Amino acid sequence: MKIASFLLDGQRRVGVLTERGLAVIDTGGADLGALLRQGLDIAGLRQRAAASQRFADPADVTFLPPAAEPPKVICVGLNYADHTKESPYEQPDYPTLFLRAATSLGAHGAAVERPRASETLDWEGEMVVVLGKGGRHIPKDKALDCVFGYAPGNEISVREYQFKSPQWTVGKNFDGTGTWGPYVVTSDELPPGGKGLKLETRLNGEVVQSANTGDMLFDVATVIATVSEAITLQAGDIIFSGTPAGVGFGRTPKRFMKHGDVVEVEIERIGLLRNPIRDEQR
Amino acid sequence: MKIASFLLDGQRRVGVLTERGLAVIDTGGADLGALLRQGLDIAGLRQRAAASQRFADPADVTFLPPAAEPPKVICVGLNYADHTKESPYEQPDYPTLFLRAATSLGAHGAAVERPRASETLDWEGEMVVVLGKGGRHIPKDKALDCVFGYAPGNEISVREYQFKSPQWTVGKNFDGTGTWGPYVVTSDELPPGGKGLKLETRLNGEVVQSANTGDMLFDVATVIATVSEAITLQAGDIIFSGTPAGVGFGRTPKRFMKHGDVVEVEIERIGLLRNPIRDEQR
Repeated sequence: MKIASFLLDGQRRVGVLTERGLAVIDTGGADLGALLRQGLDIAGLRQRAAASQRFADPADVTFLPPAAEPPKVICVGLNYADHTKESPYEQPDYPTLFLRAATSLGAHGAAVERPRASETLDWEGEMVVVLGKGGRHIPKDKALDCVFGYAPGNEISVREYQFKSPQWTVGKNFDGTGTWGPYVVTSDELPPGGKGLKLETRLNGEVVQSANTGDMLFDVATVIATVSEAITLQAGDIIFSGTPAGVGFGRTPKRFMKHGDVVEVEIERIGLLRNPIRDEQR
Repeated sequence: MKIASFLLDGQRRVGVLTERGLAVIDTGGADLGALLRQGLDIAGLRQRAAASQRFADPADVTFLPPAAEPPKVICVGLNYADHTKESPYEQPDYPTLFLRAATSLGAHGAAVERPRASETLDWEGEMVVVLGKGGRHIPKDKALDCVFGYAPGNEISVREYQFKSPQWTVGKNFDGTGTWGPYVVTSDELPPGGKGLKLETRLNGEVVQSANTGDMLFDVATVIATVSEAITLQAGDIIFSGTPAGVGFGRTPKRFMKHGDVVEVEIERIGLLRNPIRDEQR
Protein backbone atom coordinates (compact mmCIF):
# COMPACT_ATOMS: atom_id res chain seq x y z
CA MET A 1 0.00 0.00 0.00
CA LYS A 2 0.93 3.59 -0.60
CA ILE A 3 -0.51 5.79 2.12
CA ALA A 4 -0.65 9.57 2.38
CA SER A 5 -1.88 12.18 4.83
CA PHE A 6 -3.45 15.22 3.16
CA LEU A 7 -5.95 18.02 3.28
CA LEU A 8 -9.13 17.54 1.27
CA ASP A 9 -11.81 20.23 1.46
CA GLY A 10 -9.97 21.65 4.43
CA GLN A 11 -10.12 18.37 6.40
CA ARG A 12 -7.13 16.29 7.42
CA ARG A 13 -7.47 12.79 5.92
CA VAL A 14 -5.52 9.64 5.34
CA GLY A 15 -5.77 7.89 2.00
CA VAL A 16 -4.54 4.73 0.32
CA LEU A 17 -3.57 4.97 -3.35
CA THR A 18 -5.69 2.69 -5.57
CA GLU A 19 -6.46 2.49 -9.28
CA ARG A 20 -9.50 4.70 -8.60
CA GLY A 21 -7.37 7.32 -6.83
CA LEU A 22 -6.90 7.91 -3.13
CA ALA A 23 -9.30 5.77 -1.09
CA VAL A 24 -10.16 8.30 1.58
CA ILE A 25 -10.32 7.16 5.20
CA ASP A 26 -12.13 9.40 7.64
CA THR A 27 -9.89 9.35 10.70
CA GLY A 28 -11.51 12.16 12.67
CA GLY A 29 -8.56 14.41 11.92
CA ALA A 30 -5.79 11.91 12.78
CA ASP A 31 -2.93 11.56 10.34
CA LEU A 32 -1.08 8.33 9.55
CA GLY A 33 1.28 8.92 12.46
CA ALA A 34 -1.59 9.21 14.91
CA LEU A 35 -3.15 6.02 13.54
CA LEU A 36 0.12 4.16 14.07
CA ARG A 37 0.32 5.44 17.64
CA GLN A 38 -3.21 4.07 18.11
CA GLY A 39 -1.90 0.66 17.06
CA LEU A 40 -3.16 0.43 13.48
CA ASP A 41 -1.14 -2.04 11.43
CA ILE A 42 -0.91 -2.83 7.72
CA ALA A 43 -3.82 -5.29 7.82
CA GLY A 44 -6.04 -2.87 9.72
CA LEU A 45 -5.29 -0.07 7.33
CA ARG A 46 -5.99 -2.27 4.32
CA GLN A 47 -9.36 -3.14 5.82
CA ARG A 48 -10.28 0.49 6.39
CA ALA A 49 -9.20 1.46 2.89
CA ALA A 50 -11.26 -1.37 1.36
CA ALA A 51 -14.34 -0.05 3.16
CA SER A 52 -13.85 3.45 1.78
CA GLN A 53 -16.66 4.86 -0.37
CA ARG A 54 -14.83 8.01 -1.35
CA PHE A 55 -11.99 8.53 -3.80
CA ALA A 56 -9.90 11.62 -4.43
CA ASP A 57 -7.59 12.51 -7.29
CA PRO A 58 -4.05 12.94 -5.85
CA ALA A 59 -3.86 16.10 -7.99
CA ASP A 60 -6.69 17.62 -5.94
CA VAL A 61 -5.25 17.19 -2.47
CA THR A 62 -2.70 19.13 -0.45
CA PHE A 63 -0.20 16.63 0.88
CA LEU A 64 0.82 16.81 4.54
CA PRO A 65 3.78 15.09 6.14
CA PRO A 66 2.54 11.48 6.50
CA ALA A 67 3.01 12.00 10.24
CA ALA A 68 3.21 15.63 11.36
CA GLU A 69 4.08 14.98 15.01
CA PRO A 70 6.04 11.76 15.37
CA PRO A 71 7.06 10.96 18.95
CA LYS A 72 10.66 11.03 17.68
CA VAL A 73 12.36 12.06 14.45
CA ILE A 74 15.71 10.27 14.52
CA CYS A 75 18.29 11.16 11.88
CA VAL A 76 21.40 9.21 10.96
CA GLY A 77 24.41 11.23 9.80
CA LEU A 78 27.52 9.93 8.06
CA ASN A 79 25.75 6.75 6.96
CA TYR A 80 27.22 6.50 3.45
CA ALA A 81 31.01 6.27 3.18
CA ASP A 82 31.20 8.56 0.13
CA HIS A 83 29.24 11.28 1.98
CA THR A 84 31.51 11.04 5.02
CA LYS A 85 34.48 11.58 2.69
CA GLU A 86 33.01 14.89 1.47
CA SER A 87 32.29 15.96 5.09
CA PRO A 88 34.75 17.34 7.67
CA TYR A 89 34.42 14.10 9.72
CA GLU A 90 36.15 10.76 10.09
CA GLN A 91 33.86 7.76 9.80
CA PRO A 92 32.70 6.71 13.31
CA ASP A 93 32.07 3.01 13.98
CA TYR A 94 28.79 3.86 15.72
CA PRO A 95 25.77 5.56 14.08
CA THR A 96 25.95 9.37 14.21
CA LEU A 97 22.49 10.24 15.47
CA PHE A 98 20.67 13.49 15.93
CA LEU A 99 17.06 14.52 16.44
CA ARG A 100 14.71 16.79 14.59
CA ALA A 101 11.73 18.46 16.22
CA ALA A 102 8.30 18.08 14.60
CA THR A 103 8.37 21.79 13.70
CA SER A 104 11.15 20.98 11.24
CA LEU A 105 9.03 18.60 9.15
CA GLY A 106 7.49 19.45 5.81
CA ALA A 107 5.31 17.85 3.15
CA HIS A 108 5.60 16.85 -0.49
CA GLY A 109 4.82 19.90 -2.60
CA ALA A 110 5.31 22.39 0.23
CA ALA A 111 7.69 25.28 -0.37
CA VAL A 112 10.85 25.01 1.71
CA GLU A 113 12.08 28.38 2.89
CA ARG A 114 15.60 29.60 2.38
CA PRO A 115 15.76 31.37 5.73
CA ARG A 116 16.58 35.01 6.36
CA ALA A 117 19.43 33.78 8.53
CA SER A 118 21.60 32.10 5.88
CA GLU A 119 22.00 31.32 2.19
CA THR A 120 23.52 27.89 2.85
CA LEU A 121 20.40 25.76 2.22
CA ASP A 122 21.50 22.30 1.11
CA TRP A 123 19.76 19.10 -0.02
CA GLU A 124 20.07 15.64 1.53
CA GLY A 125 18.07 12.95 -0.24
CA GLU A 126 17.32 10.10 2.16
CA MET A 127 15.09 7.11 2.77
CA VAL A 128 12.73 7.62 5.71
CA VAL A 129 11.74 4.64 7.84
CA VAL A 130 8.38 4.66 9.63
CA LEU A 131 7.97 2.49 12.71
CA GLY A 132 4.71 0.66 13.30
CA LYS A 133 5.82 -0.60 16.67
CA GLY A 134 8.64 0.07 19.07
CA GLY A 135 10.36 -1.30 22.12
CA ARG A 136 13.64 -1.31 24.02
CA HIS A 137 16.54 -3.67 23.49
CA ILE A 138 15.17 -4.86 20.17
CA PRO A 139 17.43 -7.60 18.78
CA LYS A 140 18.74 -6.90 15.30
CA ASP A 141 17.04 -10.00 13.88
CA LYS A 142 13.65 -8.71 15.08
CA ALA A 143 14.24 -5.05 14.25
CA LEU A 144 12.61 -5.05 10.82
CA ASP A 145 9.38 -6.35 12.38
CA CYS A 146 9.04 -2.81 13.80
CA VAL A 147 9.03 -1.16 10.37
CA PHE A 148 5.66 -0.12 8.99
CA GLY A 149 6.98 1.41 5.78
CA TYR A 150 9.35 3.68 3.90
CA ALA A 151 9.13 7.11 2.27
CA PRO A 152 11.42 9.46 0.35
CA GLY A 153 12.82 12.27 2.47
CA ASN A 154 14.88 15.40 2.05
CA GLU A 155 16.79 16.22 5.22
CA ILE A 156 17.43 19.81 4.11
CA SER A 157 20.18 21.46 6.10
CA VAL A 158 21.34 25.02 6.72
CA ARG A 159 25.08 24.37 6.69
CA GLU A 160 26.19 27.63 8.28
CA TYR A 161 24.05 26.90 11.34
CA GLN A 162 24.96 23.21 11.38
CA PHE A 163 28.56 24.18 12.07
CA LYS A 164 28.15 27.16 14.42
CA SER A 165 28.74 24.84 17.39
CA PRO A 166 29.84 21.21 17.84
CA GLN A 167 26.21 20.06 17.62
CA TRP A 168 24.37 20.13 14.28
CA THR A 169 20.92 20.67 15.79
CA VAL A 170 20.00 24.16 14.63
CA GLY A 171 21.17 23.63 11.05
CA LYS A 172 18.98 20.52 10.95
CA ASN A 173 15.90 22.05 12.53
CA PHE A 174 14.89 25.12 10.58
CA ASP A 175 11.09 25.11 10.24
CA GLY A 176 9.74 22.92 7.47
CA THR A 177 13.09 21.71 6.14
CA GLY A 178 12.69 17.98 6.76
CA THR A 179 10.29 17.09 3.97
CA TRP A 180 9.01 13.59 3.41
CA GLY A 181 6.34 11.81 1.46
CA PRO A 182 4.11 12.00 -0.47
CA TYR A 183 3.49 8.33 0.31
CA VAL A 184 4.62 5.82 2.87
CA VAL A 185 5.02 2.50 1.09
CA THR A 186 4.33 -0.41 3.41
CA SER A 187 7.23 -2.72 4.15
CA ASP A 188 5.46 -5.79 2.75
CA GLU A 189 5.94 -4.38 -0.76
CA LEU A 190 9.67 -3.67 -0.50
CA PRO A 191 12.90 -5.59 0.08
CA PRO A 192 13.77 -6.17 3.76
CA GLY A 193 15.20 -3.00 5.30
CA GLY A 194 14.45 -1.05 2.10
CA LYS A 195 17.78 -2.31 0.75
CA GLY A 196 18.99 -2.23 -2.83
CA LEU A 197 16.85 0.67 -4.05
CA LYS A 198 18.16 3.43 -6.28
CA LEU A 199 18.04 6.86 -4.63
CA GLU A 200 18.39 10.00 -6.72
CA THR A 201 18.27 13.69 -5.81
CA ARG A 202 17.70 16.23 -8.57
CA LEU A 203 18.00 20.00 -8.48
CA ASN A 204 16.04 21.66 -11.26
CA GLY A 205 16.18 18.35 -13.10
CA GLU A 206 19.95 17.85 -12.76
CA VAL A 207 21.01 14.73 -10.91
CA VAL A 208 23.03 15.79 -7.85
CA GLN A 209 22.95 12.61 -5.78
CA SER A 210 22.76 9.08 -7.11
CA ALA A 211 23.18 6.12 -4.81
CA ASN A 212 21.73 2.85 -3.64
CA THR A 213 20.09 2.35 -0.25
CA GLY A 214 22.09 -0.86 0.04
CA ASP A 215 25.22 1.25 0.54
CA MET A 216 24.26 2.44 4.03
CA LEU A 217 27.00 1.71 6.54
CA PHE A 218 24.47 1.07 9.32
CA ASP A 219 21.47 -0.61 7.76
CA VAL A 220 17.93 -0.08 9.01
CA ALA A 221 17.93 -3.13 11.27
CA THR A 222 21.24 -2.07 12.83
CA VAL A 223 20.03 1.48 13.45
CA ILE A 224 16.83 0.27 15.12
CA ALA A 225 18.64 -2.27 17.29
CA THR A 226 21.38 0.19 18.23
CA VAL A 227 19.07 3.08 19.13
CA SER A 228 16.90 0.77 21.20
CA GLU A 229 19.85 -0.16 23.43
CA ALA A 230 19.44 3.34 24.87
CA ILE A 231 16.04 4.66 23.90
CA THR A 232 12.53 3.20 23.85
CA LEU A 233 11.30 3.34 20.28
CA GLN A 234 7.61 4.03 19.75
CA ALA A 235 5.01 3.36 17.07
CA GLY A 236 5.02 6.42 14.82
CA ASP A 237 8.70 7.24 15.29
CA ILE A 238 10.46 8.00 12.02
CA ILE A 239 14.10 7.65 11.01
CA PHE A 240 15.86 9.69 8.32
CA SER A 241 18.43 7.05 7.40
CA GLY A 242 21.24 9.21 6.01
CA THR A 243 22.32 10.84 2.78
CA PRO A 244 24.88 9.72 0.19
CA ALA A 245 27.54 11.86 -1.51
CA GLY A 246 26.66 14.81 -3.69
CA VAL A 247 25.42 17.46 -1.27
CA GLY A 248 26.05 21.08 -2.21
CA PHE A 249 28.36 21.69 0.74
CA GLY A 250 30.75 18.97 -0.44
CA ARG A 251 31.26 20.53 -3.89
CA THR A 252 33.91 22.89 -5.19
CA PRO A 253 32.65 25.51 -5.41
CA LYS A 254 29.94 24.91 -2.81
CA ARG A 255 26.43 25.04 -4.19
CA PHE A 256 23.23 25.88 -2.33
CA MET A 257 19.52 26.16 -3.11
CA LYS A 258 17.81 29.46 -3.84
CA HIS A 259 14.42 30.96 -4.47
CA GLY A 260 12.76 29.36 -7.49
CA ASP A 261 14.70 26.09 -7.38
CA VAL A 262 12.87 22.77 -7.37
CA VAL A 263 14.43 19.84 -5.53
CA GLU A 264 13.34 16.24 -5.97
CA VAL A 265 14.23 13.02 -4.17
CA GLU A 266 13.19 9.84 -5.91
CA ILE A 267 13.61 6.34 -4.51
CA GLU A 268 12.93 3.33 -6.68
CA ARG A 269 9.58 1.68 -5.79
CA ILE A 270 8.99 4.22 -3.00
CA GLY A 271 8.24 7.39 -4.91
CA LEU A 272 9.09 10.95 -5.75
CA LEU A 273 9.23 13.87 -3.30
CA ARG A 274 9.27 17.35 -4.84
CA ASN A 275 9.70 20.73 -3.12
CA PRO A 276 10.07 24.23 -4.48
CA ILE A 277 12.41 26.60 -2.67
CA ARG A 278 11.38 30.12 -1.81
CA ASP A 279 12.89 32.92 0.21
CA GLU A 280 11.52 33.41 3.71
CA GLN A 281 9.60 36.67 3.78
CA ARG A 282 11.26 39.50 5.64
CA MET B 1 2.98 29.50 42.27
CA LYS B 2 4.66 26.13 42.50
CA ILE B 3 2.99 23.64 40.20
CA ALA B 4 3.46 19.90 39.89
CA SER B 5 2.11 17.05 37.79
CA PHE B 6 1.60 13.83 39.75
CA LEU B 7 -0.29 10.62 40.21
CA LEU B 8 -2.89 10.56 42.97
CA ASP B 9 -4.98 7.43 43.44
CA GLY B 10 -3.76 6.30 40.05
CA GLN B 11 -5.00 9.43 38.26
CA ARG B 12 -2.80 12.03 36.55
CA ARG B 13 -3.38 15.43 38.16
CA VAL B 14 -1.92 18.90 38.32
CA GLY B 15 -1.61 20.65 41.64
CA VAL B 16 -0.56 24.00 43.02
CA LEU B 17 1.35 24.04 46.29
CA THR B 18 -0.49 25.95 49.05
CA GLU B 19 -0.30 26.09 52.83
CA ARG B 20 -2.96 23.37 52.91
CA GLY B 21 -0.93 21.12 50.59
CA LEU B 22 -1.34 20.54 46.87
CA ALA B 23 -4.53 22.17 45.60
CA VAL B 24 -5.58 19.47 43.17
CA ILE B 25 -6.89 20.48 39.76
CA ASP B 26 -8.82 17.88 37.82
CA THR B 27 -7.51 18.28 34.30
CA GLY B 28 -9.06 15.20 32.75
CA GLY B 29 -5.69 13.51 32.64
CA ALA B 30 -3.73 16.43 31.16
CA ASP B 31 -0.42 17.34 32.77
CA LEU B 32 0.96 20.87 33.13
CA GLY B 33 2.53 20.66 29.68
CA ALA B 34 -0.78 19.79 28.07
CA LEU B 35 -2.47 22.69 29.89
CA LEU B 36 0.18 25.08 28.55
CA ARG B 37 -0.37 23.78 25.03
CA GLN B 38 -4.07 24.48 25.54
CA GLY B 39 -3.16 28.08 26.28
CA LEU B 40 -3.46 28.18 30.04
CA ASP B 41 -1.44 31.02 31.57
CA ILE B 42 -0.41 31.92 35.12
CA ALA B 43 -3.63 33.82 35.84
CA GLY B 44 -5.81 31.00 34.52
CA LEU B 45 -3.97 28.43 36.57
CA ARG B 46 -4.24 30.56 39.72
CA GLN B 47 -7.98 30.76 39.16
CA ARG B 48 -8.35 27.01 38.76
CA ALA B 49 -6.24 26.35 41.84
CA ALA B 50 -8.30 28.79 43.91
CA ALA B 51 -11.47 26.90 42.95
CA SER B 52 -10.02 23.57 44.07
CA GLN B 53 -11.86 21.72 46.83
CA ARG B 54 -9.29 18.99 47.22
CA PHE B 55 -5.89 19.05 48.84
CA ALA B 56 -3.18 16.40 48.83
CA ASP B 57 -0.08 15.98 50.95
CA PRO B 58 2.98 16.16 48.65
CA ALA B 59 4.28 13.14 50.58
CA ASP B 60 1.33 11.10 49.30
CA VAL B 61 1.69 11.69 45.59
CA THR B 62 3.96 10.19 42.93
CA PHE B 63 5.52 13.07 41.06
CA LEU B 64 5.57 13.00 37.27
CA PRO B 65 7.65 15.17 34.99
CA PRO B 66 5.75 18.51 35.05
CA ALA B 67 5.31 17.98 31.29
CA ALA B 68 5.85 14.41 30.08
CA GLU B 69 5.61 15.12 26.35
CA PRO B 70 6.80 18.63 25.57
CA PRO B 71 6.67 19.53 21.87
CA LYS B 72 10.42 20.11 22.14
CA VAL B 73 13.08 19.49 24.78
CA ILE B 74 15.91 21.84 23.88
CA CYS B 75 19.21 21.50 25.73
CA VAL B 76 22.06 23.99 25.85
CA GLY B 77 25.55 22.57 26.12
CA LEU B 78 28.74 24.44 27.02
CA ASN B 79 26.78 27.28 28.62
CA TYR B 80 29.05 27.87 31.63
CA ALA B 81 32.68 28.79 30.90
CA ASP B 82 34.06 26.64 33.72
CA HIS B 83 32.22 23.57 32.41
CA THR B 84 33.51 24.14 28.87
CA LYS B 85 37.04 24.20 30.31
CA GLU B 86 36.56 20.71 31.81
CA SER B 87 35.12 19.43 28.49
CA PRO B 88 37.03 18.47 25.33
CA TYR B 89 35.59 21.53 23.52
CA GLU B 90 36.52 25.10 22.76
CA GLN B 91 33.89 27.69 23.72
CA PRO B 92 31.69 28.43 20.68
CA ASP B 93 30.26 31.94 20.28
CA TYR B 94 26.86 30.46 19.44
CA PRO B 95 24.73 28.29 21.78
CA THR B 96 25.53 24.58 21.52
CA LEU B 97 22.08 23.07 21.20
CA PHE B 98 20.81 19.53 21.15
CA LEU B 99 17.45 17.87 21.58
CA ARG B 100 16.10 15.25 23.93
CA ALA B 101 13.15 13.04 23.09
CA ALA B 102 10.26 12.84 25.55
CA THR B 103 11.22 9.22 26.31
CA SER B 104 14.36 10.58 27.98
CA LEU B 105 12.46 12.59 30.61
CA GLY B 106 12.02 11.56 34.20
CA ALA B 107 10.38 12.80 37.39
CA HIS B 108 11.44 13.91 40.85
CA GLY B 109 11.80 10.83 43.00
CA ALA B 110 11.96 8.40 40.10
CA ALA B 111 14.90 6.00 39.97
CA VAL B 112 17.30 6.77 37.14
CA GLU B 113 18.76 3.66 35.60
CA ARG B 114 22.44 3.09 35.16
CA PRO B 115 22.03 1.30 31.84
CA ARG B 116 23.29 -2.13 30.92
CA ALA B 117 25.21 -0.47 28.12
CA SER B 118 27.66 1.63 30.13
CA GLU B 119 28.88 2.55 33.60
CA THR B 120 29.53 6.20 32.67
CA LEU B 121 26.35 7.74 34.14
CA ASP B 122 27.07 11.37 35.03
CA TRP B 123 25.14 14.22 36.65
CA GLU B 124 24.42 17.64 35.15
CA GLY B 125 22.49 19.99 37.43
CA GLU B 126 20.64 22.60 35.39
CA MET B 127 17.84 25.13 35.47
CA VAL B 128 14.92 24.14 33.22
CA VAL B 129 12.90 26.84 31.50
CA VAL B 130 9.23 26.17 30.65
CA LEU B 131 7.66 28.16 27.83
CA GLY B 132 4.08 29.37 28.17
CA LYS B 133 4.01 30.72 24.67
CA GLY B 134 6.18 30.51 21.59
CA GLY B 135 6.76 32.09 18.23
CA ARG B 136 9.39 32.63 15.55
CA HIS B 137 11.85 35.49 15.35
CA ILE B 138 11.21 36.50 18.94
CA PRO B 139 13.23 39.64 19.76
CA LYS B 140 15.49 39.27 22.75
CA ASP B 141 13.70 42.04 24.63
CA LYS B 142 10.40 40.12 24.34
CA ALA B 143 11.85 36.66 24.91
CA LEU B 144 11.20 36.44 28.65
CA ASP B 145 7.50 37.11 28.01
CA CYS B 146 7.44 33.54 26.65
CA VAL B 147 8.61 32.00 29.92
CA PHE B 148 5.99 30.40 32.12
CA GLY B 149 8.34 29.21 34.81
CA TYR B 150 11.49 27.45 35.96
CA ALA B 151 12.32 24.08 37.51
CA PRO B 152 15.41 22.21 38.70
CA GLY B 153 16.69 19.65 36.21
CA ASN B 154 19.31 16.94 36.01
CA GLU B 155 20.44 16.41 32.43
CA ILE B 156 21.97 13.03 33.24
CA SER B 157 24.36 11.84 30.55
CA VAL B 158 25.92 8.54 29.57
CA ARG B 159 29.36 9.85 28.63
CA GLU B 160 30.58 6.80 26.74
CA TYR B 161 27.62 7.07 24.36
CA GLN B 162 27.81 10.86 24.18
CA PHE B 163 31.22 10.53 22.54
CA LYS B 164 30.74 7.48 20.31
CA SER B 165 30.13 9.79 17.33
CA PRO B 166 30.41 13.54 16.72
CA GLN B 167 26.80 14.03 17.90
CA TRP B 168 25.95 13.69 21.60
CA THR B 169 22.37 12.53 21.02
CA VAL B 170 22.43 8.96 22.31
CA GLY B 171 24.39 9.77 25.47
CA LYS B 172 21.79 12.44 26.21
CA ASN B 173 18.72 10.34 25.47
CA PHE B 174 18.81 7.17 27.54
CA ASP B 175 15.31 6.52 28.86
CA GLY B 176 14.36 8.51 31.93
CA THR B 177 17.68 10.32 32.37
CA GLY B 178 16.46 13.91 31.97
CA THR B 179 14.76 14.41 35.31
CA TRP B 180 13.06 17.64 36.28
CA GLY B 181 10.71 18.96 38.91
CA PRO B 182 9.15 18.42 41.37
CA TYR B 183 7.69 21.90 40.86
CA VAL B 184 7.65 24.52 38.14
CA VAL B 185 7.90 27.91 39.84
CA THR B 186 6.13 30.60 37.85
CA SER B 187 8.27 33.36 36.43
CA ASP B 188 6.39 36.10 38.32
CA GLU B 189 8.02 34.87 41.54
CA LEU B 190 11.63 34.84 40.29
CA PRO B 191 14.21 37.27 38.94
CA PRO B 192 13.94 37.93 35.18
CA GLY B 193 15.47 35.04 33.25
CA GLY B 194 15.94 33.07 36.47
CA LYS B 195 19.23 34.92 36.92
CA GLY B 196 21.34 35.12 40.06
CA LEU B 197 20.16 31.93 41.72
CA LYS B 198 22.46 29.51 43.47
CA LEU B 199 22.54 26.07 41.83
CA GLU B 200 23.97 23.09 43.65
CA THR B 201 24.28 19.41 42.75
CA ARG B 202 24.90 16.88 45.50
CA LEU B 203 25.85 13.22 45.23
CA ASN B 204 25.01 11.29 48.39
CA GLY B 205 25.03 14.63 50.20
CA GLU B 206 28.43 15.78 48.92
CA VAL B 207 28.39 19.00 46.92
CA VAL B 208 29.70 18.24 43.41
CA GLN B 209 28.51 21.31 41.51
CA SER B 210 28.06 24.78 42.93
CA ALA B 211 27.32 27.71 40.68
CA ASN B 212 25.06 30.64 40.00
CA THR B 213 22.52 30.76 37.16
CA GLY B 214 23.77 34.26 36.44
CA ASP B 215 26.98 32.74 35.09
CA MET B 216 25.37 31.32 31.95
CA LEU B 217 27.17 32.48 28.83
CA PHE B 218 23.94 32.58 26.83
CA ASP B 219 21.20 33.74 29.16
CA VAL B 220 17.60 32.55 28.87
CA ALA B 221 16.48 35.50 26.76
CA THR B 222 19.39 35.01 24.36
CA VAL B 223 18.72 31.29 24.00
CA ILE B 224 15.03 31.86 23.25
CA ALA B 225 15.73 34.63 20.74
CA THR B 226 18.52 32.68 19.06
CA VAL B 227 16.60 29.42 18.73
CA SER B 228 13.59 31.25 17.35
CA GLU B 229 15.64 32.63 14.45
CA ALA B 230 15.50 29.08 13.09
CA ILE B 231 12.76 27.20 14.88
CA THR B 232 9.19 27.99 15.88
CA LEU B 233 8.98 27.73 19.65
CA GLN B 234 5.73 26.42 21.11
CA ALA B 235 3.87 26.67 24.39
CA GLY B 236 5.01 23.72 26.49
CA ASP B 237 8.53 23.55 25.04
CA ILE B 238 11.18 23.20 27.71
CA ILE B 239 14.83 24.23 27.76
CA PHE B 240 17.58 22.60 29.85
CA SER B 241 19.78 25.66 30.12
CA GLY B 242 23.20 24.07 30.66
CA THR B 243 25.36 22.74 33.45
CA PRO B 244 28.28 24.36 35.32
CA ALA B 245 31.62 22.77 36.20
CA GLY B 246 31.90 19.76 38.47
CA VAL B 247 30.54 16.88 36.39
CA GLY B 248 32.03 13.46 37.04
CA PHE B 249 33.55 13.20 33.59
CA GLY B 250 35.64 16.31 34.17
CA ARG B 251 37.32 14.96 37.31
CA THR B 252 40.59 13.15 37.81
CA PRO B 253 39.92 10.34 38.31
CA LYS B 254 36.56 10.39 36.53
CA ARG B 255 33.61 9.66 38.76
CA PHE B 256 30.25 8.22 37.80
CA MET B 257 26.98 7.32 39.50
CA LYS B 258 26.15 3.78 40.56
CA HIS B 259 23.36 1.69 42.04
CA GLY B 260 22.28 3.07 45.40
CA ASP B 261 23.52 6.61 44.88
CA VAL B 262 21.18 9.55 45.44
CA VAL B 263 21.65 12.67 43.33
CA GLU B 264 20.10 16.04 44.12
CA VAL B 265 19.89 19.32 42.24
CA GLU B 266 18.79 22.30 44.26
CA ILE B 267 18.21 25.79 42.90
CA GLU B 268 17.60 28.69 45.24
CA ARG B 269 13.91 29.68 45.30
CA ILE B 270 13.06 27.01 42.70
CA GLY B 271 13.42 23.81 44.64
CA LEU B 272 15.07 20.46 45.14
CA LEU B 273 15.09 17.57 42.67
CA ARG B 274 16.13 14.18 44.06
CA ASN B 275 16.70 10.91 42.21
CA PRO B 276 18.04 7.56 43.35
CA ILE B 277 20.20 5.60 40.92
CA ARG B 278 19.63 1.92 40.26
CA ASP B 279 21.04 -0.60 37.85
CA GLU B 280 18.93 -1.41 34.83
CA GLN B 281 17.68 -4.96 35.18
CA ARG B 282 19.26 -7.50 32.89
